[in-house]
Amino acid sequence: MKFCRVSWEDKICFALEEGDHLTLVEGNPFLQWRKTNLHLALEDARFHPPSCPSKIIAVGRNYRDHAAEMGNELPKEPLLFLKPPSALIGHEAEIVYPPQSKRVDYEGELGVVIGKHVARLTDSASARAAVFGYTIVNDVTARDLQKADVQFTRAKGFDTFCPVGPFIETELDPDNVVVETCLNGEQRQHASTATLAFKVDTLVQYISNIMTLEPGDLISTGTPAGVGPMNSGDIVEVKIDSIGTLRNRVL
Amino acid sequence: MKFCRVSWEDKICFALEEGDHLTLVEGNPFLQWRKTNLHLALEDARFHPPSCPSKIIAVGRNYRDHAAEMGNELPKEPLLFLKPPSALIGHEAEIVYPPQSKRVDYEGELGVVIGKHVARLTDSASARAAVFGYTIVNDVTARDLQKADVQFTRAKGFDTFCPVGPFIETELDPDNVVVETCLNGEQRQHASTATLAFKVDTLVQYISNIMTLEPGDLISTGTPAGVGPMNSGDIVEVKIDSIGTLRNRVL
Repeated sequence: MKFCRVSWEDKICFALEEGDHLTLVEGNPFLQWRKTNLHLALEDARFHPPSCPSKIIAVGRNYRDHAAEMGNELPKEPLLFLKPPSALIGHEAEIVYPPQSKRVDYEGELGVVIGKHVARLTDSASARAAVFGYTIVNDVTARDLQKADVQFTRAKGFDTFCPVGPFIETELDPDNVVVETCLNGEQRQHASTATLAFKVDTLVQYISNIMTLEPGDLISTGTPAGVGPMNSGDIVEVKIDSIGTLRNRVL
Repeated sequence: MKFCRVSWEDKICFALEEGDHLTLVEGNPFLQWRKTNLHLALEDARFHPPSCPSKIIAVGRNYRDHAAEMGNELPKEPLLFLKPPSALIGHEAEIVYPPQSKRVDYEGELGVVIGKHVARLTDSASARAAVFGYTIVNDVTARDLQKADVQFTRAKGFDTFCPVGPFIETELDPDNVVVETCLNGEQRQHASTATLAFKVDTLVQYISNIMTLEPGDLISTGTPAGVGPMNSGDIVEVKIDSIGTLRNRVL
Protein backbone atom coordinates (compact mmCIF):
# COMPACT_ATOMS: atom_id res chain seq x y z
CA MET A 1 0.00 0.00 0.00
CA LYS A 2 1.09 3.54 -0.71
CA PHE A 3 0.11 6.24 1.77
CA CYS A 4 0.57 9.98 1.45
CA ARG A 5 -0.61 13.20 3.09
CA VAL A 6 -2.43 15.76 0.95
CA SER A 7 -4.34 19.01 1.29
CA TRP A 8 -8.13 18.56 1.50
CA GLU A 9 -10.20 21.71 1.91
CA ASP A 10 -8.41 23.51 4.77
CA LYS A 11 -6.93 20.37 6.34
CA ILE A 12 -4.11 17.90 5.70
CA CYS A 13 -5.33 14.30 5.39
CA PHE A 14 -3.82 10.88 4.90
CA ALA A 15 -4.69 9.21 1.60
CA LEU A 16 -4.11 5.90 -0.14
CA GLU A 17 -2.96 5.62 -3.74
CA GLU A 18 -5.35 3.55 -5.86
CA GLY A 19 -4.28 3.59 -9.50
CA ASP A 20 -4.73 7.08 -10.97
CA HIS A 21 -6.43 8.55 -7.90
CA LEU A 22 -6.07 8.97 -4.17
CA THR A 23 -8.67 7.82 -1.66
CA LEU A 24 -8.76 9.80 1.57
CA VAL A 25 -8.50 7.75 4.74
CA GLU A 26 -9.89 8.45 8.21
CA GLY A 27 -7.80 7.86 11.28
CA ASN A 28 -4.07 7.29 11.33
CA PRO A 29 -2.33 4.69 9.14
CA PHE A 30 0.13 4.10 12.02
CA LEU A 31 -2.71 3.01 14.30
CA GLN A 32 -6.22 2.51 12.94
CA TRP A 33 -7.63 3.77 9.66
CA ARG A 34 -10.33 3.13 7.08
CA LYS A 35 -11.05 4.37 3.59
CA THR A 36 -13.59 7.14 3.00
CA ASN A 37 -15.64 7.77 -0.14
CA LEU A 38 -13.62 10.87 -0.95
CA HIS A 39 -11.28 10.73 -3.95
CA LEU A 40 -8.76 13.05 -5.54
CA ALA A 41 -7.09 12.76 -8.95
CA LEU A 42 -3.34 12.24 -8.59
CA GLU A 43 -2.59 15.30 -10.71
CA ASP A 44 -4.76 17.53 -8.49
CA ALA A 45 -3.09 16.48 -5.24
CA ARG A 46 -1.01 18.88 -3.20
CA PHE A 47 1.40 16.66 -1.30
CA HIS A 48 2.77 17.18 2.20
CA PRO A 49 5.54 15.19 3.90
CA PRO A 50 3.97 11.73 4.32
CA SER A 51 4.52 11.58 8.09
CA CYS A 52 5.07 14.05 10.94
CA PRO A 53 8.30 12.79 12.50
CA SER A 54 9.19 13.75 16.07
CA LYS A 55 12.76 13.39 14.83
CA ILE A 56 14.65 12.87 11.57
CA ILE A 57 17.77 10.74 11.92
CA ALA A 58 20.08 10.75 8.94
CA VAL A 59 23.10 8.59 8.18
CA GLY A 60 26.35 9.88 6.68
CA ARG A 61 28.89 8.00 4.55
CA ASN A 62 26.80 4.86 4.17
CA TYR A 63 27.80 4.06 0.54
CA ARG A 64 31.48 3.33 -0.07
CA ASP A 65 31.60 5.29 -3.38
CA HIS A 66 30.10 8.40 -1.79
CA ALA A 67 32.45 8.23 1.21
CA ALA A 68 35.33 7.96 -1.27
CA GLU A 69 34.16 10.90 -3.43
CA MET A 70 34.15 13.06 -0.27
CA GLY A 71 37.62 11.80 0.69
CA ASN A 72 36.36 9.78 3.67
CA GLU A 73 36.67 6.20 4.88
CA LEU A 74 33.56 4.18 5.63
CA PRO A 75 32.82 4.68 9.34
CA LYS A 76 33.08 1.67 11.68
CA GLU A 77 29.67 2.43 13.15
CA PRO A 78 26.77 4.31 11.53
CA LEU A 79 27.50 8.05 11.42
CA LEU A 80 24.30 9.70 12.65
CA PHE A 81 23.05 13.25 12.53
CA LEU A 82 19.70 14.92 13.05
CA LYS A 83 17.74 17.20 10.75
CA PRO A 84 15.10 19.43 12.40
CA PRO A 85 11.40 18.85 11.54
CA SER A 86 11.28 22.51 10.44
CA ALA A 87 13.31 21.48 7.37
CA LEU A 88 10.54 19.21 6.03
CA ILE A 89 8.79 19.99 2.75
CA GLY A 90 6.65 17.81 0.49
CA HIS A 91 6.79 16.69 -3.13
CA GLU A 92 6.65 19.68 -5.54
CA ALA A 93 7.44 22.26 -2.80
CA GLU A 94 10.39 24.58 -3.36
CA ILE A 95 13.91 24.21 -1.94
CA VAL A 96 15.04 27.69 -0.89
CA TYR A 97 18.72 28.63 -1.27
CA PRO A 98 19.79 30.29 2.00
CA PRO A 99 21.82 33.51 1.71
CA GLN A 100 24.52 31.96 3.96
CA SER A 101 25.52 29.35 1.34
CA LYS A 102 27.00 29.46 -2.14
CA ARG A 103 26.74 25.72 -2.74
CA VAL A 104 23.65 23.64 -2.02
CA ASP A 105 23.76 19.95 -3.03
CA TYR A 106 21.11 17.27 -3.58
CA GLU A 107 21.52 13.91 -1.82
CA GLY A 108 18.95 11.30 -2.89
CA GLU A 109 18.19 8.67 -0.23
CA LEU A 110 15.86 5.86 0.79
CA GLY A 111 13.82 6.93 3.84
CA VAL A 112 12.52 4.56 6.51
CA VAL A 113 9.30 5.49 8.35
CA ILE A 114 8.94 3.97 11.80
CA GLY A 115 5.55 2.50 12.74
CA LYS A 116 5.87 1.74 16.45
CA HIS A 117 7.14 3.07 19.74
CA VAL A 118 10.32 0.98 20.12
CA ALA A 119 13.57 1.07 22.08
CA ARG A 120 16.60 -1.17 22.56
CA LEU A 121 15.76 -3.63 19.78
CA THR A 122 17.95 -6.72 19.99
CA ASP A 123 17.60 -8.35 16.56
CA SER A 124 16.91 -7.58 12.92
CA ALA A 125 13.48 -9.23 12.89
CA SER A 126 12.15 -6.85 15.54
CA ALA A 127 13.85 -3.96 13.71
CA ARG A 128 12.04 -4.91 10.49
CA ALA A 129 8.75 -5.23 12.39
CA ALA A 130 9.16 -1.68 13.75
CA VAL A 131 9.13 -0.22 10.21
CA PHE A 132 5.85 1.11 8.81
CA GLY A 133 7.17 1.66 5.29
CA TYR A 134 9.64 3.35 2.99
CA THR A 135 9.78 6.76 1.36
CA ILE A 136 12.16 9.03 -0.55
CA VAL A 137 14.30 11.75 1.01
CA ASN A 138 16.46 14.48 -0.47
CA ASP A 139 19.02 15.25 2.26
CA VAL A 140 19.72 18.76 0.94
CA THR A 141 23.10 20.00 2.17
CA ALA A 142 24.93 23.36 2.09
CA ARG A 143 28.25 21.77 1.17
CA ASP A 144 30.34 24.89 1.87
CA LEU A 145 28.91 25.22 5.40
CA GLN A 146 29.24 21.48 6.04
CA LYS A 147 32.98 21.81 5.38
CA ALA A 148 33.28 24.96 7.52
CA ASP A 149 31.30 23.78 10.56
CA VAL A 150 32.28 21.06 13.04
CA GLN A 151 28.71 19.73 13.16
CA PHE A 152 26.37 19.12 10.20
CA THR A 153 23.47 20.84 11.98
CA ARG A 154 23.50 24.15 10.12
CA ALA A 155 24.52 22.76 6.72
CA LYS A 156 21.71 20.20 6.72
CA GLY A 157 19.17 22.01 8.89
CA PHE A 158 17.93 25.00 6.87
CA ASP A 159 14.20 25.35 6.22
CA THR A 160 13.20 23.36 3.08
CA PHE A 161 16.34 21.16 3.28
CA CYS A 162 14.36 17.96 3.85
CA PRO A 163 12.02 17.16 0.93
CA VAL A 164 10.23 13.86 1.64
CA GLY A 165 7.64 11.79 -0.21
CA PRO A 166 5.42 11.69 -2.11
CA PHE A 167 4.48 8.25 -0.76
CA ILE A 168 5.22 5.74 1.97
CA GLU A 169 5.24 2.25 0.41
CA THR A 170 4.51 -0.36 3.06
CA GLU A 171 5.56 -3.40 0.99
CA LEU A 172 9.13 -3.19 -0.20
CA ASP A 173 12.43 -5.02 0.14
CA PRO A 174 14.58 -2.12 1.41
CA ASP A 175 17.82 -3.98 0.69
CA ASN A 176 17.18 -4.18 -3.02
CA VAL A 177 15.87 -0.93 -4.50
CA VAL A 178 17.63 1.53 -6.80
CA VAL A 179 17.95 5.15 -5.68
CA GLU A 180 18.31 7.49 -8.65
CA THR A 181 18.69 11.26 -8.66
CA CYS A 182 18.20 13.44 -11.75
CA LEU A 183 19.01 17.12 -12.07
CA ASN A 184 17.04 18.81 -14.85
CA GLY A 185 16.30 15.37 -16.26
CA GLU A 186 19.94 14.22 -16.30
CA GLN A 187 20.91 11.23 -14.17
CA ARG A 188 23.42 12.12 -11.40
CA GLN A 189 23.07 9.34 -8.81
CA HIS A 190 22.19 5.67 -9.38
CA ALA A 191 22.87 2.95 -6.83
CA SER A 192 21.18 -0.04 -5.25
CA THR A 193 20.57 -0.14 -1.51
CA ALA A 194 22.20 -3.60 -1.77
CA THR A 195 25.47 -1.63 -1.62
CA LEU A 196 24.63 0.17 1.67
CA ALA A 197 27.40 -0.28 4.25
CA PHE A 198 24.82 -0.47 7.06
CA LYS A 199 21.52 -1.94 5.90
CA VAL A 200 18.07 -0.79 7.02
CA ASP A 201 17.55 -3.41 9.76
CA THR A 202 20.99 -2.71 11.19
CA LEU A 203 20.32 1.04 11.24
CA VAL A 204 16.92 0.72 12.92
CA GLN A 205 18.33 -1.61 15.56
CA TYR A 206 21.42 0.56 16.12
CA ILE A 207 19.44 3.81 16.44
CA SER A 208 16.81 2.22 18.74
CA ASN A 209 19.62 1.47 21.19
CA ILE A 210 20.38 5.19 21.42
CA MET A 211 17.00 6.87 21.15
CA THR A 212 13.44 5.60 21.49
CA LEU A 213 11.75 5.66 18.10
CA GLU A 214 8.17 6.86 17.64
CA PRO A 215 5.55 6.24 14.92
CA GLY A 216 6.26 8.60 12.02
CA ASP A 217 9.94 9.04 12.85
CA LEU A 218 12.10 9.16 9.74
CA ILE A 219 15.50 7.56 9.14
CA SER A 220 17.32 8.64 6.00
CA THR A 221 19.76 5.91 5.05
CA GLY A 222 22.56 7.84 3.33
CA THR A 223 23.34 8.95 -0.21
CA PRO A 224 25.30 7.19 -2.98
CA ALA A 225 28.06 8.71 -5.10
CA GLY A 226 27.29 11.52 -7.54
CA VAL A 227 26.32 14.37 -5.23
CA GLY A 228 26.58 17.82 -6.74
CA PRO A 229 25.34 21.39 -6.62
CA MET A 230 21.93 22.77 -7.54
CA ASN A 231 21.20 26.25 -8.79
CA SER A 232 18.17 28.48 -8.78
CA GLY A 233 15.57 27.19 -11.23
CA ASP A 234 16.90 23.61 -11.25
CA ILE A 235 14.50 20.69 -10.95
CA VAL A 236 15.75 17.87 -8.75
CA GLU A 237 14.09 14.45 -8.82
CA VAL A 238 14.84 11.49 -6.56
CA LYS A 239 13.30 8.24 -7.82
CA ILE A 240 12.81 4.84 -6.28
CA ASP A 241 10.78 2.76 -8.73
CA SER A 242 8.39 1.08 -6.33
CA ILE A 243 7.77 4.29 -4.34
CA GLY A 244 7.65 7.08 -6.93
CA THR A 245 9.44 10.31 -7.75
CA LEU A 246 10.12 13.13 -5.31
CA ARG A 247 10.39 16.31 -7.38
CA ASN A 248 11.36 19.77 -6.13
CA ARG A 249 12.38 23.02 -7.74
CA VAL A 250 15.20 25.17 -6.38
CA LEU A 251 14.31 28.78 -5.65
CA MET B 1 5.66 34.03 36.28
CA LYS B 2 6.88 30.48 36.63
CA PHE B 3 5.19 27.79 34.57
CA CYS B 4 5.71 24.04 34.74
CA ARG B 5 4.06 20.82 33.54
CA VAL B 6 2.97 18.29 36.11
CA SER B 7 1.04 15.04 36.37
CA TRP B 8 -2.63 15.50 37.30
CA GLU B 9 -4.74 12.36 37.53
CA ASP B 10 -3.90 10.56 34.28
CA LYS B 11 -2.96 13.70 32.34
CA ILE B 12 -0.07 16.15 32.10
CA CYS B 13 -1.12 19.76 32.75
CA PHE B 14 0.48 23.17 32.76
CA ALA B 15 0.65 24.83 36.16
CA LEU B 16 1.74 28.15 37.66
CA GLU B 17 3.93 28.41 40.74
CA GLU B 18 2.28 30.50 43.48
CA GLY B 19 4.43 30.45 46.62
CA ASP B 20 4.40 26.96 48.17
CA HIS B 21 1.86 25.51 45.75
CA LEU B 22 1.08 25.08 42.08
CA THR B 23 -2.16 26.25 40.47
CA LEU B 24 -3.21 24.27 37.43
CA VAL B 25 -3.92 26.32 34.31
CA GLU B 26 -6.27 25.62 31.43
CA GLY B 27 -5.19 26.20 27.87
CA ASN B 28 -1.67 26.76 26.69
CA PRO B 29 0.66 29.35 28.26
CA PHE B 30 2.14 29.93 24.77
CA LEU B 31 -1.25 31.04 23.45
CA GLN B 32 -4.17 31.55 25.82
CA TRP B 33 -4.54 30.31 29.36
CA ARG B 34 -6.35 30.96 32.64
CA LYS B 35 -5.98 29.71 36.19
CA THR B 36 -8.25 26.96 37.51
CA ASN B 37 -9.28 26.34 41.13
CA LEU B 38 -7.10 23.23 41.30
CA HIS B 39 -3.98 23.35 43.44
CA LEU B 40 -1.11 21.01 44.21
CA ALA B 41 1.51 21.30 46.95
CA LEU B 42 4.99 21.80 45.50
CA GLU B 43 6.32 18.72 47.31
CA ASP B 44 3.58 16.52 45.82
CA ALA B 45 4.20 17.57 42.21
CA ARG B 46 5.57 15.14 39.65
CA PHE B 47 7.31 17.36 37.12
CA HIS B 48 7.55 16.84 33.36
CA PRO B 49 9.69 18.81 30.91
CA PRO B 50 8.09 22.28 30.98
CA SER B 51 7.48 22.43 27.21
CA CYS B 52 7.14 19.97 24.32
CA PRO B 53 9.76 21.21 21.87
CA SER B 54 9.54 20.25 18.20
CA LYS B 55 13.32 20.59 18.32
CA ILE B 56 16.10 21.11 20.86
CA ILE B 57 18.98 23.22 19.59
CA ALA B 58 22.08 23.20 21.74
CA VAL B 59 25.20 25.34 21.55
CA GLY B 60 28.74 24.04 22.00
CA ARG B 61 31.81 25.90 23.27
CA ASN B 62 29.95 29.04 24.26
CA TYR B 63 31.99 29.84 27.40
CA ARG B 64 35.70 30.54 26.90
CA ASP B 65 36.77 28.59 30.01
CA HIS B 66 34.87 25.47 28.94
CA ALA B 67 36.21 25.63 25.37
CA ALA B 68 39.70 25.90 26.88
CA GLU B 69 39.24 22.96 29.29
CA MET B 70 38.24 20.80 26.29
CA GLY B 71 41.29 22.05 24.32
CA ASN B 72 39.18 24.08 21.87
CA GLU B 73 39.14 27.65 20.63
CA LEU B 74 35.95 29.69 20.85
CA PRO B 75 34.14 29.21 17.52
CA LYS B 76 33.69 32.21 15.21
CA GLU B 77 29.99 31.47 14.83
CA PRO B 78 27.71 29.59 17.26
CA LEU B 79 28.43 25.85 17.13
CA LEU B 80 24.99 24.23 16.93
CA PHE B 81 23.82 20.68 17.41
CA LEU B 82 20.45 19.02 17.93
CA LYS B 83 19.26 16.74 20.72
CA PRO B 84 16.24 14.53 19.94
CA PRO B 85 12.99 15.14 21.87
CA SER B 86 13.18 11.47 22.95
CA ALA B 87 16.03 12.49 25.28
CA LEU B 88 13.81 14.78 27.39
CA ILE B 89 13.12 14.00 31.04
CA GLY B 90 11.78 16.18 33.83
CA HIS B 91 12.98 17.29 37.25
CA GLU B 92 13.58 14.30 39.57
CA ALA B 93 13.49 11.73 36.74
CA GLU B 94 16.46 9.39 36.39
CA ILE B 95 19.38 9.73 33.99
CA VAL B 96 20.13 6.25 32.63
CA TYR B 97 23.74 5.29 31.89
CA PRO B 98 23.79 3.63 28.45
CA PRO B 99 25.82 0.40 28.12
CA GLN B 100 27.70 1.94 25.16
CA SER B 101 29.45 4.56 27.34
CA LYS B 102 31.91 4.43 30.22
CA ARG B 103 31.85 8.19 30.85
CA VAL B 104 28.72 10.27 31.11
CA ASP B 105 29.15 13.95 32.03
CA TYR B 106 26.79 16.64 33.36
CA GLU B 107 26.66 20.01 31.56
CA GLY B 108 24.55 22.62 33.35
CA GLU B 109 23.04 25.25 31.04
CA LEU B 110 20.53 28.08 30.77
CA GLY B 111 17.66 27.03 28.47
CA VAL B 112 15.62 29.41 26.32
CA VAL B 113 11.99 28.50 25.54
CA ILE B 114 10.63 30.02 22.34
CA GLY B 115 7.12 31.52 22.48
CA LYS B 116 6.31 32.27 18.83
CA HIS B 117 6.53 30.92 15.31
CA VAL B 118 9.45 33.01 14.00
CA ALA B 119 11.97 32.91 11.15
CA ARG B 120 14.72 35.13 9.77
CA LEU B 121 14.77 37.60 12.67
CA THR B 122 16.79 40.68 11.82
CA ASP B 123 17.49 42.29 15.20
CA SER B 124 17.94 41.53 18.87
CA ALA B 125 14.68 43.20 19.94
CA SER B 126 12.61 40.81 17.81
CA ALA B 127 14.76 37.92 19.03
CA ARG B 128 14.00 38.88 22.66
CA ALA B 129 10.30 39.23 21.83
CA ALA B 130 10.26 35.67 20.43
CA VAL B 131 11.29 34.22 23.81
CA PHE B 132 8.58 32.90 26.14
CA GLY B 133 10.89 32.34 29.09
CA TYR B 134 13.93 30.63 30.55
CA THR B 135 14.54 27.23 32.06
CA ILE B 136 17.37 24.94 33.16
CA VAL B 137 18.94 22.20 31.03
CA ASN B 138 21.43 19.47 31.80
CA ASP B 139 23.05 18.69 28.43
CA VAL B 140 24.10 15.17 29.48
CA THR B 141 26.95 13.90 27.29
CA ALA B 142 28.69 10.55 26.81
CA ARG B 143 32.16 12.10 26.69
CA ASP B 144 33.92 8.98 25.38
CA LEU B 145 31.50 8.66 22.46
CA GLN B 146 31.63 12.40 21.75
CA LYS B 147 35.38 12.05 21.26
CA ALA B 148 35.03 8.91 19.13
CA ASP B 149 32.23 10.09 16.81
CA VAL B 150 32.42 12.79 14.15
CA GLN B 151 28.99 14.14 15.10
CA PHE B 152 27.66 14.78 18.63
CA THR B 153 24.34 13.07 17.81
CA ARG B 154 24.91 9.77 19.58
CA ALA B 155 26.92 11.14 22.53
CA LYS B 156 24.25 13.72 23.35
CA GLY B 157 21.17 11.92 22.05
CA PHE B 158 20.58 8.96 24.36
CA ASP B 159 17.22 8.61 26.10
CA THR B 160 17.21 10.60 29.40
CA PHE B 161 20.15 12.79 28.26
CA CYS B 162 18.11 16.00 28.31
CA PRO B 163 16.76 16.80 31.79
CA VAL B 164 14.86 20.12 31.65
CA GLY B 165 12.95 22.18 34.21
CA PRO B 166 11.42 22.31 36.67
CA PHE B 167 10.12 25.76 35.68
CA ILE B 168 10.01 28.26 32.85
CA GLU B 169 10.53 31.74 34.33
CA THR B 170 9.04 34.36 32.01
CA GLU B 171 10.67 37.38 33.67
CA LEU B 172 14.44 37.15 33.74
CA ASP B 173 17.50 38.98 32.41
CA PRO B 174 19.15 36.07 30.56
CA ASP B 175 22.46 37.91 30.28
CA ASN B 176 22.96 38.13 34.01
CA VAL B 177 22.15 34.88 35.82
CA VAL B 178 24.50 32.41 37.47
CA VAL B 179 24.46 28.78 36.30
CA GLU B 180 25.67 26.42 39.04
CA THR B 181 26.03 22.65 38.93
CA CYS B 182 26.47 20.49 42.01
CA LEU B 183 27.34 16.79 42.08
CA ASN B 184 26.29 15.11 45.33
CA GLY B 185 26.03 18.56 46.90
CA GLU B 186 29.51 19.69 45.85
CA GLN B 187 29.80 22.68 43.51
CA ARG B 188 31.37 21.80 40.14
CA GLN B 189 30.28 24.56 37.76
CA HIS B 190 29.62 28.23 38.55
CA ALA B 191 29.49 30.96 35.93
CA SER B 192 27.43 33.96 34.94
CA THR B 193 25.74 34.07 31.54
CA ALA B 194 27.37 37.52 31.30
CA THR B 195 30.44 35.55 30.17
CA LEU B 196 28.66 33.74 27.29
CA ALA B 197 30.51 34.17 24.00
CA PHE B 198 27.21 34.38 22.09
CA LYS B 199 24.42 35.87 24.18
CA VAL B 200 20.79 34.73 24.16
CA ASP B 201 19.48 37.35 21.70
CA THR B 202 22.33 36.64 19.29
CA LEU B 203 21.66 32.88 19.47
CA VAL B 204 17.91 33.23 18.88
CA GLN B 205 18.46 35.56 15.94
CA TYR B 206 21.24 33.37 14.47
CA ILE B 207 19.25 30.14 14.75
CA SER B 208 16.06 31.72 13.36
CA ASN B 209 18.00 32.48 10.18
CA ILE B 210 18.64 28.75 9.72
CA MET B 211 15.49 27.09 11.00
CA THR B 212 12.00 28.37 11.74
CA LEU B 213 11.40 28.33 15.49
CA GLU B 214 8.11 27.14 17.01
CA PRO B 215 6.44 27.77 20.40
CA GLY B 216 7.98 25.41 22.95
CA ASP B 217 11.24 24.95 21.05
CA LEU B 218 14.23 24.82 23.37
CA ILE B 219 17.65 26.40 22.92
CA SER B 220 20.34 25.31 25.37
CA THR B 221 22.95 28.02 25.54
CA GLY B 222 26.13 26.08 26.34
CA THR B 223 27.93 24.97 29.48
CA PRO B 224 30.64 26.71 31.53
CA ALA B 225 33.91 25.17 32.73
CA GLY B 226 33.90 22.36 35.28
CA VAL B 227 32.27 19.51 33.36
CA GLY B 228 32.95 16.07 34.74
CA PRO B 229 31.70 12.50 34.98
CA MET B 230 28.73 11.14 36.90
CA ASN B 231 28.39 7.65 38.31
CA SER B 232 25.48 5.44 39.21
CA GLY B 233 23.73 6.75 42.32
CA ASP B 234 25.04 10.31 41.94
CA ILE B 235 22.67 13.25 42.39
CA VAL B 236 23.23 16.08 39.91
CA GLU B 237 21.67 19.51 40.46
CA VAL B 238 21.73 22.46 38.10
CA LYS B 239 20.66 25.72 39.74
CA ILE B 240 19.73 29.11 38.41
CA ASP B 241 18.55 31.21 41.35
CA SER B 242 15.55 32.90 39.80
CA ILE B 243 14.34 29.68 38.10
CA GLY B 244 15.00 26.91 40.60
CA THR B 245 16.94 23.66 40.86
CA LEU B 246 16.84 20.83 38.32
CA ARG B 247 17.71 17.65 40.22
CA ASN B 248 18.23 14.18 38.73
CA ARG B 249 19.68 10.92 39.98
CA VAL B 250 21.95 8.78 37.83
CA LEU B 251 20.85 5.17 37.39
